Amino acid sequence: MEIKIIKNVMQYNKEEADANRELLKDNKTKMINILSSPGAGKTSLIIETIIQLKDLFRIGVIEGDIASTYDSEKIKKFTDNVVQINTGGTCHLNASMVAKALKELNARELDIIFVENVGNLICPVGFDLGENYRVLVSSVSEGDDKPIKYPKAFIKNDLILLNKLDLLENSKIISDFNLDFFIKNIKEINNNVEIIKISCKTKEGFESWISWLKNKLNA
Amino acid sequence: MEIKIIKNVMQYNKEEADANRELLKDNKTKMINILSSPGAGKTSLIIETIIQLKDLFRIGVIEGDIASTYDSEKIKKFTDNVVQINTGGTCHLNASMVAKALKELNARELDIIFVENVGNLICPVGFDLGENYRVLVSSVSEGDDKPIKYPKAFIKNDLILLNKLDLLENSKIISDFNLDFFIKNIKEINNNVEIIKISCKTKEGFESWISWLKNKLNA
Repeated sequence: MEIKIIKNVMQYNKEEADANRELLKDNKTKMINILSSPGAGKTSLIIETIIQLKDLFRIGVIEGDIASTYDSEKIKKFTDNVVQINTGGTCHLNASMVAKALKELNARELDIIFVENVGNLICPVGFDLGENYRVLVSSVSEGDDKPIKYPKAFIKNDLILLNKLDLLENSKIISDFNLDFFIKNIKEINNNVEIIKISCKTKEGFESWISWLKNKLNA
Repeated sequence: MEIKIIKNVMQYNKEEADANRELLKDNKTKMINILSSPGAGKTSLIIETIIQLKDLFRIGVIEGDIASTYDSEKIKKFTDNVVQINTGGTCHLNASMVAKALKELNARELDIIFVENVGNLICPVGFDLGENYRVLVSSVSEGDDKPIKYPKAFIKNDLILLNKLDLLENSKIISDFNLDFFIKNIKEINNNVEIIKISCKTKEGFESWISWLKNKLNA
């Protein structure tokens, strides 16, 4: 008696991710998967980006959380195109969850879709969602050792945003964050990745982030 | 033909955790499982606690990371009783990993063992390691919404430490962290848990944390 083996989970996810990519391709919609630790600033980044780009592009957001609609309610004040995915405890989004959200969003009518992944520097890394670009948000307050301690999170990105720059450049605070050390350790594992320093609080560095985005949208 | 089912993973973990607890019980060694997001301050907390208590207690540390020996090298400067567990990508420690580390540590000769779990606010929560107490470190820079967004992380603890208090009480920084909101949302899911505010940078609040520890060690 032969025991049937369920199709490999990662292979299944890959097929669903490819289907998501295919769905968005026709209409040149770009999907951006945003990863970070809890509290690194993904939601603030998305809100400020919507404010700056809402007259130029049709923007949608897929909010991934293990529980609550707290972040999507915040984002709802700036755009109606928000879908919340509650994973019910699962520590990352997968392509099949995103496929359902894309249907809800009327994805084809949007220019950009930001996917805010579950706050977790480990588990979301291995799951392709069908995104066009992957952006990692790291923050000054997490410390300069994150690329050493979570190397896989820093490898697969198209862009790394270092947020909370205001905590580094405020002369009233003694910060032990060593920027050279942070960058050196990223370059050792992902030499080609672009790194942009920003502050969602002071808006410093947003010109560079917005310009990176516009380049990708026209690509 | 009967297909044998591998024993439930969580049941196996529970048995291993009970064995760890049993091992430590004879000698009144207390094990403390410390959980947090990446970069919330677990390592700094452990180092400062060793500095303050090393003449009173024999202290050991089990360092959990997905990669590198970066944190254990830091701790090695303050105590020789350190064992590193590299999970090789796994997003949490389990009781069986800790069992091996306890053997390496000569656990029975220690008064306290701090277990620094992998930086992750989701996956470590469900895994009993055989600890006597579980402490969650949250930090001001992660934002006041963490109890809403990661409720399970805030339920099962004996103590919650709110770290990086210096970022809240520094009049030169405009912080949007609402302490009442943070505490209210914890109390709604875990009304009895103690919350101590600390700063590993300024050492504010350490008297309360050290006094909590001493009480538990004498319990």
